[in-house]
Amino acid sequence: MNGFDRAEYAARTARAQAMMDRAGLAALLLTTEPEVRYFTGFLTRFWESPTRPWFLVVPALGAPVAVIPSIGADLMGRTWISDIRTWSAPDLADDGVSLLSDTLAELVPRDGAIGLPDGHETHARMPLADLDRLRAALAPRRIAGDAGIIRRLRMVKSPAEIARIEAACAIAGRAFARVPEIASAGASLSDVFRRFQILCLQEGADWVPYLAGGAGPGGYADVISPATPAPLAPGDVLMLDTGLVRDGYFCDFDRNWSIGQPAPAVQAAHRRLVEATRAGFEAARPGATAADLYHAMDQVLGGGTGAGRLGHGLGMSLTEWPSLIADDHTVLEEGMVLTLEPGIATPGGILVHEENIVVTPGGARYLSPPSEPEIAVL
Amino acid sequence: MNGFDRAEYAARTARAQAMMDRAGLAALLLTTEPEVRYFTGFLTRFWESPTRPWFLVVPALGAPVAVIPSIGADLMGRTWISDIRTWSAPDLADDGVSLLSDTLAELVPRDGAIGLPDGHETHARMPLADLDRLRAALAPRRIAGDAGIIRRLRMVKSPAEIARIEAACAIAGRAFARVPEIASAGASLSDVFRRFQILCLQEGADWVPYLAGGAGPGGYADVISPATPAPLAPGDVLMLDTGLVRDGYFCDFDRNWSIGQPAPAVQAAHRRLVEATRAGFEAARPGATAADLYHAMDQVLGGGTGAGRLGHGLGMSLTEWPSLIADDHTVLEEGMVLTLEPGIATPGGILVHEENIVVTPGGARYLSPPSEPEIAVL
Repeated sequence: MNGFDRAEYAARTARAQAMMDRAGLAALLLTTEPEVRYFTGFLTRFWESPTRPWFLVVPALGAPVAVIPSIGADLMGRTWISDIRTWSAPDLADDGVSLLSDTLAELVPRDGAIGLPDGHETHARMPLADLDRLRAALAPRRIAGDAGIIRRLRMVKSPAEIARIEAACAIAGRAFARVPEIASAGASLSDVFRRFQILCLQEGADWVPYLAGGAGPGGYADVISPATPAPLAPGDVLMLDTGLVRDGYFCDFDRNWSIGQPAPAVQAAHRRLVEATRAGFEAARPGATAADLYHAMDQVLGGGTGAGRLGHGLGMSLTEWPSLIADDHTVLEEGMVLTLEPGIATPGGILVHEENIVVTPGGARYLSPPSEPEIAVL
Repeated sequence: MNGFDRAEYAARTARAQAMMDRAGLAALLLTTEPEVRYFTGFLTRFWESPTRPWFLVVPALGAPVAVIPSIGADLMGRTWISDIRTWSAPDLADDGVSLLSDTLAELVPRDGAIGLPDGHETHARMPLADLDRLRAALAPRRIAGDAGIIRRLRMVKSPAEIARIEAACAIAGRAFARVPEIASAGASLSDVFRRFQILCLQEGADWVPYLAGGAGPGGYADVISPATPAPLAPGDVLMLDTGLVRDGYFCDFDRNWSIGQPAPAVQAAHRRLVEATRAGFEAARPGATAADLYHAMDQVLGGGTGAGRLGHGLGMSLTEWPSLIADDHTVLEEGMVLTLEPGIATPGGILVHEENIVVTPGGARYLSPPSEPEIAVL
């Protein structure tokens, strides 16, 4: 159940190759987990180890070529990739650079350009000194950017990908529904975090790469802090925001609860957030832009929290392009999966609400089970 | 409980600055989670989101300067860092590059060099196009490598760091001891993986970033694959290898179990692995090299699995320098934390065993509760 049909990977490769042809790129060089998995289905938590670089080359014609540490040969051999070249990593003298250079030299003409993703939300997962060595070994071939190809490909999800994100969302929805079992006044926030991750696993998460949240009287200070042992107290707002993974795909949404009866300002803030989310939902259709969704939500909020954006893409990574900000004019297409994540200031700090949606021809569809306007009470 | 005393961060900074002086570097530029946390204590799971870059500048004199997205200002403000410069990220036109460039221009003389880690097991977590823009903006200042400074600093752990790794190891040890509760013939491997992560959380893990393993008759194919729904069967060897995190520090060790009575070859292989681990343990003392530990274990094994190394460093990352391979001549020092991870081929595949140790003046000390020579039976 880890990979998709061979046809899906072949179609992705063909789409990439058509874009490469238009951009004048003779190959793509990919180094990060979602980039490699996008074309191969290679799924392992071993990327948690920063020691070894992993490379995938998408040539102008034919299937991708994996240039990887030998420890991954068996697992890569179970994907559709047949050209798998390995070295015994770590090799302190030459950690795959010669093997990768030889592979690219074989696949790319001397006057050709190799596309390495270099834009927003990307990085090259390999030592910079090795990248310099690779550039020198490949000259006169050039290593350039990828002309945004990976971004454009990954932003639009296939039906099979959407089904996986929806499955992850359903798991988180069931875990959120069980929060009354684990959280109440007196419970420490760090215990609530542990127990919520247990609920996610019990409901079917493969793993829980992300959990953040907060708790405080009438609001919380931010949405990225780890838990403290501080006990929940009456009047606190508790927020849990999870990115759990099922079959290699994330959900990313949150829920808020009031410990005991909420203050009127907290009730009003939560209703406003749900209203803003619905405005974003209504605005989401093919042809609208990321900025349109931002403005639709911002208008309801009447001023946010200063945290920046009001949502983002979602898929193999917890956060992906586009960003729901005023300056992102990405045109929405059928198959894009987005989070709607409005935030609002309260007397006690901030409140943030988040749902996950997919863009369909007729408008948006919720992938997360959407929250009620009234904040839940614990 | 997330950070250490201010004195620990100040001492780390002073050690870095002494090394920078010798290497002719006017500043360090750091972009990854463990690098930023090493000097600040800034701990958040938000790094899971690849969208935003985060920067820390260690100048030649004085405390580090954080150049970060505004979403992290509150949390960074709770560390010892007082010079925190923020921008509203994501900014598609200028995602922190000008702010970082201005900061570095202020702290680094025009003929100065800025050290960005570029060696083995490093990468720059920022878009390559932005790194090019930064280089251009800072000229004639140069962005060079870090002369291995971060590697040398992070390889030697403080007593406070060792205590945290030991606490993580104890949690995993308790979880491994409870595996008979969750695994037996007929249980699916993917359910065992889920339930083992629950045990880790119940025993005190903050989160479980890494779990791998395998199961198969008389051995398994590799140690990096995710779980499949295949049920465990009598004669299988089950292996679970976890990197759980407590207070920001990892453990990384594994355990093997036989489902029902093990074949004599499996029993012998497990005894051999424990014997090899003990040989590595005996060889580990200040002045010995990483290669010495490799050879001590390899001699007992009489030929490994081809997977490369027989252990590695451990700390804020699941795997760190050095590598226990024949070519790594890193000299061990008091305070280095290592995994000993011998592997061996069996008729059914491979078996891998792993323990965690710390180097002390008198020799090694186990941080993981060491395994018995006899493979456990479920």
